[in-house]
Amino acid sequence: MKKDQLLKQFDELEKKLYAYGHAMMLLNWDGSTFAPTKSVEGRSIASSVLAGEQHKILTRKETGDLINELRQTDDLDEVSQAKVNEFYRDYKKLTCIPEKEVMEFSKLRAQSESIWVEAKKNNDFASFVPSLEKLIDFTKRFAKYYDSEEKPYNTLLDDYQPGLKMETVDAFFAEVEKSLVPLNKFVASSQRLNEAKKIKERINAKGFAKEGQIKLIDRLFELQGLDPDRCKIAQSAHPFTSGANSNDIRYTVTYHEDNLAAGIFAAFHEGGHAMYQLNINGEYDYSSIYTGASMTMHESQSRIYENNMGRSKAFNPYIYEAVKKEFPKQMSDVSADDFYLYSNYSSPSFIRVEADELTYSLHVMIRYQIERMIFEENLPVAELPAIWNKKYEEYLGITPPTDTLGVLQDVHWSFGLFGYFATYSLGTAYSAQLEATMKEHIDYDGALKKGNLTEITKWLKENVQQYGRLYTDDKILNIATGKSFDPSYYTKYLNDKYREIYK
Amino acid sequence: MKKDQLLKQFDELEKKLYAYGHAMMLLNWDGSTFAPTKSVEGRSIASSVLAGEQHKILTRKETGDLINELRQTDDLDEVSQAKVNEFYRDYKKLTCIPEKEVMEFSKLRAQSESIWVEAKKNNDFASFVPSLEKLIDFTKRFAKYYDSEEKPYNTLLDDYQPGLKMETVDAFFAEVEKSLVPLNKFVASSQRLNEAKKIKERINAKGFAKEGQIKLIDRLFELQGLDPDRCKIAQSAHPFTSGANSNDIRYTVTYHEDNLAAGIFAAFHEGGHAMYQLNINGEYDYSSIYTGASMTMHESQSRIYENNMGRSKAFNPYIYEAVKKEFPKQMSDVSADDFYLYSNYSSPSFIRVEADELTYSLHVMIRYQIERMIFEENLPVAELPAIWNKKYEEYLGITPPTDTLGVLQDVHWSFGLFGYFATYSLGTAYSAQLEATMKEHIDYDGALKKGNLTEITKWLKENVQQYGRLYTDDKILNIATGKSFDPSYYTKYLNDKYREIYK
Repeated sequence: MKKDQLLKQFDELEKKLYAYGHAMMLLNWDGSTFAPTKSVEGRSIASSVLAGEQHKILTRKETGDLINELRQTDDLDEVSQAKVNEFYRDYKKLTCIPEKEVMEFSKLRAQSESIWVEAKKNNDFASFVPSLEKLIDFTKRFAKYYDSEEKPYNTLLDDYQPGLKMETVDAFFAEVEKSLVPLNKFVASSQRLNEAKKIKERINAKGFAKEGQIKLIDRLFELQGLDPDRCKIAQSAHPFTSGANSNDIRYTVTYHEDNLAAGIFAAFHEGGHAMYQLNINGEYDYSSIYTGASMTMHESQSRIYENNMGRSKAFNPYIYEAVKKEFPKQMSDVSADDFYLYSNYSSPSFIRVEADELTYSLHVMIRYQIERMIFEENLPVAELPAIWNKKYEEYLGITPPTDTLGVLQDVHWSFGLFGYFATYSLGTAYSAQLEATMKEHIDYDGALKKGNLTEITKWLKENVQQYGRLYTDDKILNIATGKSFDPSYYTKYLNDKYREIYK
Repeated sequence: MKKDQLLKQFDELEKKLYAYGHAMMLLNWDGSTFAPTKSVEGRSIASSVLAGEQHKILTRKETGDLINELRQTDDLDEVSQAKVNEFYRDYKKLTCIPEKEVMEFSKLRAQSESIWVEAKKNNDFASFVPSLEKLIDFTKRFAKYYDSEEKPYNTLLDDYQPGLKMETVDAFFAEVEKSLVPLNKFVASSQRLNEAKKIKERINAKGFAKEGQIKLIDRLFELQGLDPDRCKIAQSAHPFTSGANSNDIRYTVTYHEDNLAAGIFAAFHEGGHAMYQLNINGEYDYSSIYTGASMTMHESQSRIYENNMGRSKAFNPYIYEAVKKEFPKQMSDVSADDFYLYSNYSSPSFIRVEADELTYSLHVMIRYQIERMIFEENLPVAELPAIWNKKYEEYLGITPPTDTLGVLQDVHWSFGLFGYFATYSLGTAYSAQLEATMKEHIDYDGALKKGNLTEITKWLKENVQQYGRLYTDDKILNIATGKSFDPSYYTKYLNDKYREIYK
């Protein structure tokens, strides 16, 4: 049968592209975790050759012909149809842009990144302006190539969450602004905050040696219920999760001797990303739907382990005991309650990646609003620092003293990544909606109190994780929670939690 | 200029092939050192796709055209000429065989390996006979495709050492047989052997925890003078060295709690391979001459660090002190002299990879003689076990009780690797010739007594290692030692050393 033959060819093509992806994952993994320091040149030759070869395969005429034939085939099964659709999305995104502009943009990105590094180091936003302007121009043009009818920023949002539109994100951040700006003010002026700050400083000052943290992270890996035959941990400068297929997932942690919480909760966070990848239906391995439904859904899975479970009052005793076992001396005068407060210290700060659970979305909201103005209202780049600082003052009550601590802090724009930030907060908001639903279906609090995250993972696997990119976020949320995305779960979750802690 | 353009194309082609090689190295490295246990399938898909793609690039018509044009270009510089020659050797070896037979052979190898694994486990040589016969038939035919005029076994030897012929190897093993069979008998009947055996058992029985061995191996890495910015160590089931270019080398060690010497000297051995790769002229990176001159020359560099330096009387105090520092309790009643005897314990045994410095070449000689009979005298495969056992009795004075401990022990034949074994011993013999020459030019013993291997490495780098595959073994030996290969250095070295120790 012709359909079977096409699907067989398609499967071979996906496996071929998989092989390049697996190799590039390893090159990056090796460079970040193991390779000798002077090995950069060879790795960069290898990566760029393989990326180029993969790109050639993906964009060549036979690939287009095959994917178009498959798109015109009527009676594909659901899984094959999803693979074809997702493959076509990638294919169209790559091939809609003239080759020459792809090359120029790629060169621009590489240059911009090092210009940004210098600009950030020297607190010199002006030196980054020309690069940023060019990156934005390219990105606007590319969005139009992909879909000339659509608003550019909607096309950018779609890169990170298929089908996401400003409408949804606007409504979400309206709710965030309305509810979390006051909540943040409430916490910032709470009497309890001072006590929390002292506990935080007292614990961090004790010092937590790397050797002990390595053993502790192994114990957290077990507590989280990750499968050691399919998932491994290494160490790198910044934590990240990587993987090739449902039997080959790895993530990294970073050890800060003066900040135990950073290591612990980053490990839970990356462990959540890893759990998602481990639990995607193994039948989707080596295909375009072996990935999270979106960056948003991926973030929902990392945050639900990190925050909803990891920083919860019910689960706190387990992390506390694990820490105490590895660091009995440091923990001798720290109670479980102290540790809970330590894990949930919240205070406005300048740097997004160091922000706590509560203030995090305020950081993201600022980036979203600015990007939206850039792409939909032609905000001049030169005005970014002023707007940035004004918004920090307005939403967080603090003004960055430098652009290094302000508009220059994130790497994303220097890579030409626009439309990405929103997924961080949306994902966190999904977590709350998923958690609230779980509470109706399983003994969620009971499981946390027993330290049994596996019971919770079972529900997440069945209702979210197994699907990979078979369905959209909206469909998965409807399967899992019986409704589309509803931001109120998130603001309620944060209000309930933080008004209780900082009352 | 046309020549420059051809060389530029050639350079791009070599870099492209390099990228695939780097990726396949990493896939193998990751699988042996880090990857989760269940990750085999994805890695094998990735490896076989990339190997296939690399093979396609290497064998396609444009590649042949380019390499032939370059071969007809007269005034290439020495380095470019060497690259072209080496590339052409590979190209011809791959393209002289009809595609269909390549595929069949590759399938046969995969099947044969698992049949061999079972046969070895069950001591069932008969079950391996049909596979081995087919592997030999293919190999004979392939040798004829490559060079119909040449004796097949010479063509096989050339796979592992360009230009090597039976004539050289026959003369070498004649010397080995004449000199080392009696030496082995001398040692085996020495009064001292019993004492050495007791020391060995006493030390091994103390137990050496992995954590301490890891620190010890780091210290040996420093002692050997390896560059930590370009070379790293990991752990795997069997020690091996791997690498992509002169700035990216890695090797593994294996820790045996009940056999400290195995770990130490395997680390020096792999460290020697690593040193060679680190010291090849960096200008040959990403090209076909960024490799050892031959497997033989590579083995000479591993063995010279492992044995000539590592197990020498002059250097013994440094290893002894390093061991004592990590294992003070275990070493409390072990003297430096005891440790020297421990490092140089020699006794006939069944398994090649566990053999000591003295008996090692007798194991290899047996394999060489048998392979030579297979390929030049059509020795029937069914007769292998009987011949094997007879030769072990004749040369080593012991008869393997099973084929598992005899003819089935090595993996090589199940992979279709014939002609490889000889390089192990020839390389060891090179070491002795290089060492003897160094003694005439630098204060070799003085350097060992100062624990300064860097001084010795400097000479080896200048006279051997830097050349990579620019020259043949013979040319390099002439540069380094002023003469072609002379096996008598090797037999003299062993006689001097072992008649002294076991007198």
